[in-house]
Amino acid sequence: MKNMVLSESSGKRLSELVSLTDAHLEELHKRALNGTGKQSVITDAMWYSLSAGGKRLRPVLTLEFCHVCGGDERKALSAACALEMIHTFSLIHDDLPCMDNDDMRRGKPSCHKAFGESMALLAGDALLNMAFGVIADDEYLSADTKTALIRELSSSSGILGMIGGQVIDTEYKGEFDDALILDMYSMKTSALLRAACRMGCISAGADEDRISAAGEFAEKLGLAFQITDDILDMTGDERILGKPVGSDAQNGKNTYASVNGIEAARKKASELTDEAYARLDGFKDNGFLRELTLYLLGRDR
Amino acid sequence: MKNMVLSESSGKRLSELVSLTDAHLEELHKRALNGTGKQSVITDAMWYSLSAGGKRLRPVLTLEFCHVCGGDERKALSAACALEMIHTFSLIHDDLPCMDNDDMRRGKPSCHKAFGESMALLAGDALLNMAFGVIADDEYLSADTKTALIRELSSSSGILGMIGGQVIDTEYKGEFDDALILDMYSMKTSALLRAACRMGCISAGADEDRISAAGEFAEKLGLAFQITDDILDMTGDERILGKPVGSDAQNGKNTYASVNGIEAARKKASELTDEAYARLDGFKDNGFLRELTLYLLGRDR
Repeated sequence: MKNMVLSESSGKRLSELVSLTDAHLEELHKRALNGTGKQSVITDAMWYSLSAGGKRLRPVLTLEFCHVCGGDERKALSAACALEMIHTFSLIHDDLPCMDNDDMRRGKPSCHKAFGESMALLAGDALLNMAFGVIADDEYLSADTKTALIRELSSSSGILGMIGGQVIDTEYKGEFDDALILDMYSMKTSALLRAACRMGCISAGADEDRISAAGEFAEKLGLAFQITDDILDMTGDERILGKPVGSDAQNGKNTYASVNGIEAARKKASELTDEAYARLDGFKDNGFLRELTLYLLGRDR
Repeated sequence: MKNMVLSESSGKRLSELVSLTDAHLEELHKRALNGTGKQSVITDAMWYSLSAGGKRLRPVLTLEFCHVCGGDERKALSAACALEMIHTFSLIHDDLPCMDNDDMRRGKPSCHKAFGESMALLAGDALLNMAFGVIADDEYLSADTKTALIRELSSSSGILGMIGGQVIDTEYKGEFDDALILDMYSMKTSALLRAACRMGCISAGADEDRISAAGEFAEKLGLAFQITDDILDMTGDERILGKPVGSDAQNGKNTYASVNGIEAARKKASELTDEAYARLDGFKDNGFLRELTLYLLGRDR
């Protein structure tokens, strides 16, 4: 599974969804630039990080879950871009000197290295803020759908989700056992993936059963994804990853892999991936999502 | 006008609206604390700053504009608290070492002095995020109203509003003339006040004319308020203000008062206040808002 590659059709589908996302982000970029005057440097800083070569995993999941629930992907584009904005804001703030102090991100200088600390702080704030505006401004969705999407986005990225997980990661001084590490991953990584998959279903107008199944899929996927990330931080190649390896150990971070060892971590990630895989049974036309799930575990970047 | 005090009835009304706001913030605090586990320190940091003795000007305006448009204040409580969260997030991030580096805020150690830099960064992020969630979760408002409120909140606090103004304030390296300083104040200070007044009207279901008039009132009030703030930074008493004076000059900031002198600034603030005052003509039962406007210019804190 380590060298899993996507089939030609899935590779094509992935490119298609990434292109849809990038085109809509570019459209939002143009609108933002047109509006800003002497403060336009913030738009540059925001899009520097937004276009720094992220995998667009969250948007891809949003668009594909919308599709497998029978919706036109266009209906999920605002949610997809909002999730990428939230993800990017979190990376910009995580890289700041008072957090992880990472100088590189995706093979390029991190936002504060390129634009300075205060600009990076404000660019992160602005991306978080804009994520909600993008959904509220969408021209295709009903007010009910927008409200449901915004509730998902806020709860998944707030103190009970991504930010809450970040707090445990950086501030909690007690002992980290397996359960707490997995709780932390559930908040820090799974929460936003859960939102991505659920928001795709919501955009398509899917029923509660499908929304829940998509959320459970994402929960498992997120844990597997984070554990794989830990392993790569201990064993990966800096040139391929495009970011420094060993930063977890250097920052004294407790990870599933560092606490349980690399082999146990590989086994756990594999089990979680199987569980995620099984949650896709209820969705028709799930070939791409199944391949993507396996691909993400075997990824080398 | 320097020693303007509110009449007994207006003072009572002000207390009433502040109490309504504080009670709802406390309710939201309890809900947040109940939900958080090992990350609960972030809730402490968020409410440390939220309850640090702010004037609650934005919530008061939101609730009162809802009232003068014929709405029950309860319908505007989520918007009011959301605005206070956005305002507080901006103060926490502005105080950080990479921004204004202020150790004190409202007579108490600023958030990063009390909780550390990384916690203050995350607490600001979480307040910004929660502001949108509070509106989306409101149980009294329609989805249409929620969406309209969220659009106001996002546009007023983003790159075309508060954050945009902050970028010009901290990053713009060109010359600051009167027009640019007033533009910057319009974004940095008026935008959120404009949102406060407009969101009060929107919560009440008011028509577009009233929403616009409320926005114009706030625009003028915000400029007057910011110029008054500049004057206080040059002339105020640190013990009364509860924050250091002279920090603008120390940080090399261009303010209307520093560029034009204190007397010209006083005159401009007075003119703007008169203009704001006139915009209230279209609202019945506007006695409190009129007194509040005059009070804010003559305030000594």
